[in-house]
Amino acid sequence: MASQQALHDRFGLPLAFSLSAVLDDQADPLARLLAAISKAGGRLGHIQLVEQPQGKTVYDLQLFLRNDEHLQQVAAACKAVSGVEVTKLTDLAMESHRGGACEMRSRTPIRSNTDLRVVYTPGVARVCKAIQADPAKARQFTNIANKVAIATNGTAILGLGDIGALAGLPVMEGKAAIFWEFTGISAEPVLIDTHDPKEFVNIMEKLACGFGAIQIEDVAAPECFYITRELDRRLKIPVFHDDQHGTATIVLAGLYSALKLTGRKIDQVRVAISGAGAAGTAIAELLQLAGVGDVVLADRAGVLYRGRTENMNPEKAALAQRTNKDNIQGTLADAMRGRELFIGVSQAGIVSKDMVRAMAPKPIVFALANPVSEIPVADAYAAGAAIAADGRMMNNALAYPGIFRGALDSAAESITVEMMLAAAAALAGLVPQGQLMPEMMDPATHQAVAEAVKSATAKKR
Amino acid sequence: MASQQALHDRFGLPLAFSLSAVLDDQADPLARLLAAISKAGGRLGHIQLVEQPQGKTVYDLQLFLRNDEHLQQVAAACKAVSGVEVTKLTDLAMESHRGGACEMRSRTPIRSNTDLRVVYTPGVARVCKAIQADPAKARQFTNIANKVAIATNGTAILGLGDIGALAGLPVMEGKAAIFWEFTGISAEPVLIDTHDPKEFVNIMEKLACGFGAIQIEDVAAPECFYITRELDRRLKIPVFHDDQHGTATIVLAGLYSALKLTGRKIDQVRVAISGAGAAGTAIAELLQLAGVGDVVLADRAGVLYRGRTENMNPEKAALAQRTNKDNIQGTLADAMRGRELFIGVSQAGIVSKDMVRAMAPKPIVFALANPVSEIPVADAYAAGAAIAADGRMMNNALAYPGIFRGALDSAAESITVEMMLAAAAALAGLVPQGQLMPEMMDPATHQAVAEAVKSATAKKR
Repeated sequence: MASQQALHDRFGLPLAFSLSAVLDDQADPLARLLAAISKAGGRLGHIQLVEQPQGKTVYDLQLFLRNDEHLQQVAAACKAVSGVEVTKLTDLAMESHRGGACEMRSRTPIRSNTDLRVVYTPGVARVCKAIQADPAKARQFTNIANKVAIATNGTAILGLGDIGALAGLPVMEGKAAIFWEFTGISAEPVLIDTHDPKEFVNIMEKLACGFGAIQIEDVAAPECFYITRELDRRLKIPVFHDDQHGTATIVLAGLYSALKLTGRKIDQVRVAISGAGAAGTAIAELLQLAGVGDVVLADRAGVLYRGRTENMNPEKAALAQRTNKDNIQGTLADAMRGRELFIGVSQAGIVSKDMVRAMAPKPIVFALANPVSEIPVADAYAAGAAIAADGRMMNNALAYPGIFRGALDSAAESITVEMMLAAAAALAGLVPQGQLMPEMMDPATHQAVAEAVKSATAKKR
Repeated sequence: MASQQALHDRFGLPLAFSLSAVLDDQADPLARLLAAISKAGGRLGHIQLVEQPQGKTVYDLQLFLRNDEHLQQVAAACKAVSGVEVTKLTDLAMESHRGGACEMRSRTPIRSNTDLRVVYTPGVARVCKAIQADPAKARQFTNIANKVAIATNGTAILGLGDIGALAGLPVMEGKAAIFWEFTGISAEPVLIDTHDPKEFVNIMEKLACGFGAIQIEDVAAPECFYITRELDRRLKIPVFHDDQHGTATIVLAGLYSALKLTGRKIDQVRVAISGAGAAGTAIAELLQLAGVGDVVLADRAGVLYRGRTENMNPEKAALAQRTNKDNIQGTLADAMRGRELFIGVSQAGIVSKDMVRAMAPKPIVFALANPVSEIPVADAYAAGAAIAADGRMMNNALAYPGIFRGALDSAAESITVEMMLAAAAALAGLVPQGQLMPEMMDPATHQAVAEAVKSATAKKR
């Protein structure tokens, strides 16, 4: 179909660097430099003329690359161009995190002693007393009604695993930056350095009075289920685990969009999910609520079925009860055979073209493992997929900023399934023709999600 | 002395309001309005012409007032002026906290998918891996080297007592605003909803990896001693209790300044302190280290002496061992008699003019109880004080922003006595002639404190 190319991420290259080069004006090597980069497989972004000292021109070139080895190859190719001196290679990801991706600033100017005396003593005592007398006033006279805790113990940071809370901080800061840029929410990383889920819950419960909502982030399964559920039970503010609820919302939005593109009905869709952790579990539950025909999950031990004993835990046992209608057994390939939708939230490269070919005709393939998907999108198309997408195209950042904006603005006490269904429908409703997902950079996207969630907000059930 | 007036806070009125009024141009009542306010005892700040609709002029007047009753009196006086319609009274303290005094913002713009992919996945994985390989890199590629936790359990908020962590949040946010405005530090309120000091320490220890330093704030004595000491022992980042260390630094700076103004030497100064809580204890210790002649403390049970049994705890028993050379007994009046310096960190109105008269000739009086001091500054002068000051003039916000800036910039592992002595000396060195404390609003004040603290930084002893 004509829209296939548009569904692709533009380059799909994970590394972004800036290359600084001094070009000799006499030799005029710019065209040759760009050709060398292109020949070495690097892709170009911005090309910026920085300055023009005597007889020279200094350029910064934004480069997209596969990996560090590829970077070295492209840099070597650039250095081999006559009239070009490469002066600096800058890792744009590291640079964007230098000094941190977020910071706490004053919302009130302090230019005079009067300013100081209203924001701090003696004036602040009036604000404290007003909240003491009526705690609900804290939503008006502190930042809590706009404040989200992004809480992690670092046990499942991206696809990197248990790298510890501190090494996970750049992810939390990145999310805080996204919250602020997309929806004006003040989100604070909260690192809780413990592997004990009970301690995590107890600590977060004691901290919760300072927040309007909690995003649990990159906490490993199955502990994340207990943590999210228990905090939701104890607290009267929304508790949302992005790896569960955010991912499930995005997948459902993508499914709605794919149904439109392929002319299918949701109850005709039978689903195979690779991965039975936080994301897989939440996706299975939300998709069943949304009305898909059947869901089967597979993990390292193969298909999840009633009676399985290998690699089980109480969460998976419960999941086996609620999925896999025909109680099939076997491998991931068996789970996918004849099904209309594959969803990968597992690991790089575990799906072959043959496995896609064995699905129902014109299947939908969402291969979302990060940073490298279960099967390259191009391979899925080559194997006959009607729609194929990876984690770059189906990004949680389309969902969680608007979901929290809506939940905070409606003073919701929980994130309900109704709110997630509404968010998914809103996202699908915004998709430009021929595309799978709406535009991330358009503020209207996040506003529409927030409005849908606000409308769907009900008090804690 | 000629400088006495300059040492006074300008108005000393704790309430700040804005009064909006519509003035009839025909009647031209502005002068009569201002006269009415003045006659009712209100003091004016900014007078702002807001707009001029047909035949009218709208003004906003900044008013300083004693209390809510006084506000009503002044408002009534304004309404009685012919040609004046009072349309709004706005509490400036409440307004400055509306929506919160601080918020977490992005430090990196997200304008394109490339921006998103460097600040978040896939780019951020490189940053995480770099920190996992070398945790020290977190100081470069996250915000922690510039981030302070302002941690409280709400047990001693200002002079208001145990009003709870949530009602104390405006103080924490106000401090965060001050940190940002004065020194560009990202400071985050951390509310820990517990009365158990061991739990407070355990929670803060688990959170500490996300911060470069910790300010313990408005935690009641004696628990604050254990909390501060124990966290300092467990952690390799600075732990500072403003009510102890900040107040002690400010008092020592004020003393240095007062010594210069009165031509005294520090070892000639014998001190009486009212209050043996967090502030009194820390002041006693720092002043003795700085070389004062003797220190006696008094609390609700009177003078603290070796062998006292009433209203004691282990902290006070230890303090009695280290203070009160002659082991005198009696009341606060007995403690003050014949002494050169009185320091009040206790409660409103407990010092009489006679008690000041019974001090050594030309005594120094720092009556720092907030928001109402132990004796009005004017009364202390009337009773013969050479120097008198209250908490408005000797404000901790002169010390802690620069102390933390210096400690963070030098990667200090503790706040040492040497750093506090250096900060106090730096503050005293900046005082304009005839004044007691340097200018709060001058960035050079906070820079000088930071530089002095940096120079004094030693690794954890």
